[in-house]
Amino acid sequence: MLCVGLDPDPKRFPLHLRDQPDAIYQFCVAIVRATAAEVCAFKPQIAYFSDWRAEDQLEAVIQYIHQHHPGIPVILDAKRGDIGSTAEHYAREAFERYKADAVTASPYMGLDSLEPYLAYQDRGLIVLCRTSNPGGSDLQSLQLATGERLFERVAALAAGPWNTHGQLALVVGATFPNELQRVREIAPDLPLLVPGIGAQGGDVNATVAAGISAAGHGLIISSSRAILYAGAGEDFAEAASRAAAQTALEIRQARPPIR
Amino acid sequence: MLCVGLDPDPKRFPLHLRDQPDAIYQFCVAIVRATAAEVCAFKPQIAYFSDWRAEDQLEAVIQYIHQHHPGIPVILDAKRGDIGSTAEHYAREAFERYKADAVTASPYMGLDSLEPYLAYQDRGLIVLCRTSNPGGSDLQSLQLATGERLFERVAALAAGPWNTHGQLALVVGATFPNELQRVREIAPDLPLLVPGIGAQGGDVNATVAAGISAAGHGLIISSSRAILYAGAGEDFAEAASRAAAQTALEIRQARPPIR
Repeated sequence: MLCVGLDPDPKRFPLHLRDQPDAIYQFCVAIVRATAAEVCAFKPQIAYFSDWRAEDQLEAVIQYIHQHHPGIPVILDAKRGDIGSTAEHYAREAFERYKADAVTASPYMGLDSLEPYLAYQDRGLIVLCRTSNPGGSDLQSLQLATGERLFERVAALAAGPWNTHGQLALVVGATFPNELQRVREIAPDLPLLVPGIGAQGGDVNATVAAGISAAGHGLIISSSRAILYAGAGEDFAEAASRAAAQTALEIRQARPPIR
Repeated sequence: MLCVGLDPDPKRFPLHLRDQPDAIYQFCVAIVRATAAEVCAFKPQIAYFSDWRAEDQLEAVIQYIHQHHPGIPVILDAKRGDIGSTAEHYAREAFERYKADAVTASPYMGLDSLEPYLAYQDRGLIVLCRTSNPGGSDLQSLQLATGERLFERVAALAAGPWNTHGQLALVVGATFPNELQRVREIAPDLPLLVPGIGAQGGDVNATVAAGISAAGHGLIISSSRAILYAGAGEDFAEAASRAAAQTALEIRQARPPIR
């Protein structure tokens, strides 16, 4: 259930990589090779590439994953959100240009802003529900006139009327296990992408206990910086491999026995 | 108060442009030249460029606007939204790579997801409030326990605690004039970016009446397709110029006399 987030920050790369013209590609591919045995998905964050004019390296990283690890899906973390005619272009960007298997998106503009992604029926769409950042509460925790909080309504929409072909999942941060548990109650069968483990302080045991589905799965637990930058020297990939194995072990130990 | 949205769709370009390798750049620059006399801003929509691997042409279009029309600000319509450390990369992408004067963003992840943009104190941030698409109501019109609707809370946050250095504006669609008026009441001084005029059916008179500030300004009324594709032949730029002049005239006629 471990997902490695690919958030490449050249300022944190080991020295021997920093001057390479394709340093971002090399760093990511080394991480992919070192951690593939431990993961259920890779999640490249597009801003870390576009900031550096490295869209071509992002395409190449995803191509590398598909070619060498065809069983591991790629989640493009882009958090787009726009009206239908524009969202069509974002969907083409994610699924045709980058060939992602799933993409993250914001629910703020409603169902028709998500439909162009859902038109790709073999791909997934992961909708922001409850995020782990401090400002996540500003809107998401607002109480509605019905008594629900906003993120609960998003979970109910994604588990119900929005999920016309079973392609939806939700982003729920690891830092609020009670709220993760609440989302799991509302959406018993949806996969939940849970960032916030590791550098952001989320706890593995609490996350698994709160978020696992009745069938014993349904979690994609994402860690980025704690794995990518576990080492700072030429052996960074080995350090990442050890950190990923350790996190995967913690997740396995936290899982209840499969019934 | 007219803003021309640059949503270049190569399938709708005049035939003589379609086979050019930099057709997107050429089309946009022709539109910029033809309409600059009528506009207060240009608004390129990034998905229309990234879908075609045309980030370099987007950079070149914005550079062209800054060089030839230095008084006209560029709004990068990107609708990003992510936690602080990732939003820093999106902010650098918008303001340093593309050199936009302002960028659009989603409020769903709260204030700390907006702060990295606000750190650029000479740039603007335009937050989604009430959008004109059919699904815009799914979340934005939800009534809160306080009696407010969600978009009203967003307007109040942007007009108050979030607007620490006066850099915020709001996106409010043209298709709901009553709600535009309500946002204007809550945020009397904020600039409002109003898409939905033209192809999306918004009415100029109703928009100006509902959205203009007490001081007689505060609106950035955006039109894209109705201007970009006013003509389909070699004279597309002249047709765009006439359409922009006509829309600008309608806006001027709708404005109350300046006191």
